Amino acid sequence: MDRTYIADLKPDTTCKIQGYVENLRNKRTMAFLVIKDLSGKVQVTVEKEKYPEIAAEVDKLTLDSVVTFEGPVIANEYVKLNGIEMLPTSIKIESIAEALPIQRDEIKGGKAKDLERSSIDQRLDYRWIDLRTEQNQLIFKLQTYMVKVMRDFLSDRNFLEIHSPKLIGAASESGSDVFELTYFDRKAYLSQSPQFYKQMAMASGLERIFEVGPVFRAEKSFTSKHATEFTGFDLEFSYIDSFRDVMKLEEELLTDMLTKVKEKFGDEIERLYGLEVKVPTTPFPVIKLADLYDELEKNYGYKVDDSEKGDLTTEAEKLSYKWVQEKYDHEFLFITDYDAEKRAFYHMRDENGVPMGYDLIWRGVEITTGAQREHRYDVLKAQCDEKGLTEDVKFYLEFFKYGCPPHGGFGLGVDRLTMLFLGLGIKEVMYIFRGPNRLNP
Amino acid sequence: MDRTYIADLKPDTTCKIQGYVENLRNKRTMAFLVIKDLSGKVQVTVEKEKYPEIAAEVDKLTLDSVVTFEGPVIANEYVKLNGIEMLPTSIKIESIAEALPIQRDEIKGGKAKDLERSSIDQRLDYRWIDLRTEQNQLIFKLQTYMVKVMRDFLSDRNFLEIHSPKLIGAASESGSDVFELTYFDRKAYLSQSPQFYKQMAMASGLERIFEVGPVFRAEKSFTSKHATEFTGFDLEFSYIDSFRDVMKLEEELLTDMLTKVKEKFGDEIERLYGLEVKVPTTPFPVIKLADLYDELEKNYGYKVDDSEKGDLTTEAEKLSYKWVQEKYDHEFLFITDYDAEKRAFYHMRDENGVPMGYDLIWRGVEITTGAQREHRYDVLKAQCDEKGLTEDVKFYLEFFKYGCPPHGGFGLGVDRLTMLFLGLGIKEVMYIFRGPNRLNP
Repeated sequence: MDRTYIADLKPDTTCKIQGYVENLRNKRTMAFLVIKDLSGKVQVTVEKEKYPEIAAEVDKLTLDSVVTFEGPVIANEYVKLNGIEMLPTSIKIESIAEALPIQRDEIKGGKAKDLERSSIDQRLDYRWIDLRTEQNQLIFKLQTYMVKVMRDFLSDRNFLEIHSPKLIGAASESGSDVFELTYFDRKAYLSQSPQFYKQMAMASGLERIFEVGPVFRAEKSFTSKHATEFTGFDLEFSYIDSFRDVMKLEEELLTDMLTKVKEKFGDEIERLYGLEVKVPTTPFPVIKLADLYDELEKNYGYKVDDSEKGDLTTEAEKLSYKWVQEKYDHEFLFITDYDAEKRAFYHMRDENGVPMGYDLIWRGVEITTGAQREHRYDVLKAQCDEKGLTEDVKFYLEFFKYGCPPHGGFGLGVDRLTMLFLGLGIKEVMYIFRGPNRLNP
Repeated sequence: MDRTYIADLKPDTTCKIQGYVENLRNKRTMAFLVIKDLSGKVQVTVEKEKYPEIAAEVDKLTLDSVVTFEGPVIANEYVKLNGIEMLPTSIKIESIAEALPIQRDEIKGGKAKDLERSSIDQRLDYRWIDLRTEQNQLIFKLQTYMVKVMRDFLSDRNFLEIHSPKLIGAASESGSDVFELTYFDRKAYLSQSPQFYKQMAMASGLERIFEVGPVFRAEKSFTSKHATEFTGFDLEFSYIDSFRDVMKLEEELLTDMLTKVKEKFGDEIERLYGLEVKVPTTPFPVIKLADLYDELEKNYGYKVDDSEKGDLTTEAEKLSYKWVQEKYDHEFLFITDYDAEKRAFYHMRDENGVPMGYDLIWRGVEITTGAQREHRYDVLKAQCDEKGLTEDVKFYLEFFKYGCPPHGGFGLGVDRLTMLFLGLGIKEVMYIFRGPNRLNP
């Protein structure tokens, strides 16, 4: 018999189900189990006297053991769980679980019953047990779909997928936070960003590319947003007229993605996390950094220190969410006109020296830096010299000597987007979190 | 004016095109250029006396410079290239190329005019220039689509996508070929395979998962098939009855992919590489390893050394293609019943100790190892002890203590599949190749 997903069970059929034992009440004449698979949960009711051989097997079961049951499914109005139950005629134990080392009670409406749960670090030690909850499985259903619709959006617009090397010969961009490794008889480094290689694709005439892959940051940060390894979603495209084309593509990409995610998972996200998925209107609100600081001061009395004015402070980042909601009833905000000093050397600058790029803030958290890139070798080299990076990025400068179209792009963090959808921290949202103190499992 | 892709140009329209200067004949009164974008090539004919300002710009152009042209497109039966040309009324130079440091004449019908081309290693030094050819761009069009249709096939069957960590705490499986790095105050290693973590997803109740991501091998191999970093396409799924379910999924996945790739790129692959895409029939031929050796001896006089009989020799791998073509008119061959000694400890074994797994050979090259995995903790631990690996994979064994469904899976190499489609070596097919002696660009 083929397996039926629990969510697809119908009364008055005979089915085979397979899943984890989520609950188990083993009484004298009856046993009541809740079996959970990736699609849902169902009550399995064992008539012990009628099926002594099933009863004998049920006696061996523990929570989180894995079983296969076959038998009729019937409607029963007294069963709380969807009003149906299976009355099995056969059982096969696939795997017996030892006593669980962590307590992982479910989060209700976005709030964990913290007293009953193991700490996040204890749960991460046994991540595979922690991941068996409905809430945690939604993370991966949502993320799989989110990335799929974004990839499809780009494929429909002639973007090609590249897989750029993570092993690199020179510690690029921001040398300090890079992992170094022994590469045969020399040193290599782990890529902190596919930036240089996605720009190489522009110099290769590939015109429009994206990449989904790991990025590595050797930062000793212990915030709820930082990990030493996470999944980047990066794209770059040629023949743009301005960085406004990049912003436009990004808002279209995100709006399409949010529309589809809401349609497919909006109800589940609300049920399991108590959060609404809101489809944004386009164009997204845009403001210059200096104007944002003015608004934050005028409306909330927030005063930024002069030395910090060229960049967005963490406090202003959060506060900007309040402002954009009140002013535009919007969750997204593009911020432009940062100080050249605070931006990467490869951002193209306008005639006043202002970088032609932006940050995008969603729910008060920066999710993207985007820009038109400087593709003119001489200008790029000058900007590079100015930051004293020329020696480090020599190989990269070569990409622009032999013909390169104008281009721009941006990067998103897959894990960060997922966090913001579900109101979770980075440790909770990653399949397997990596931080300065964590390399297991 | 919006840009028109060159392949979409129609006579009697006025368009804007953008691309690389592939050819340039600058005469006294006329200039003839071939402009190439990702979609195709077109002749641009400049009437120099009529447009002296265009002529002045054309005088600055070099091969592989990047330009924007606007103007009418007309039919002209004397133009070899598709019988159309653009007569530009404006030009904008986007980027001037220095003299190209490599010679990259196109491959015709699968054969390079080797005398005129730079060596592959010279071309790899300037990979971005090398990649501008139609042949090389087809690699990424094909690969993007191939991976997309395989992902879609799996999404349609409820597979979730995971991104497992590439930074790992213990040098697993085959400790010798692993890259080691400094991870703050300790050591870490680069993942050689997502094997353990995709199995962890099974213990997490995610049921069916795939991953597309980099894998790292610190092997000092200099063959046309080996790289130190490449892209793996891995999947794993629960509640299988046998490794035959894994083989079935793989043959369906590959047949679906080949059908779609042939439809979309079959003609282009034939035109640019002289190779046919052949859609396989299912089921794929299957043979036991010992029987294959018998057949190869009977048909081709190939004798395998007794000490090598438990595994497939490179010679037999190649020869098996001849055999499967002659016997079944097929390009694929499943080989089963390897020696337990030659297979990974986590392959489940039957009652006779034979691993319940397979290799899949396409065109005489192994593209997959697949198997049902041992999910029973005690049996797994015994098999692990037998290979002396228990200490190394302690963290992995834990996955099976607290409930785990029966499962199996396989892995494919994205780059290797692309190689086989196009008859290329690994250096030619990767976006940016990494080998023991190559970390650039």
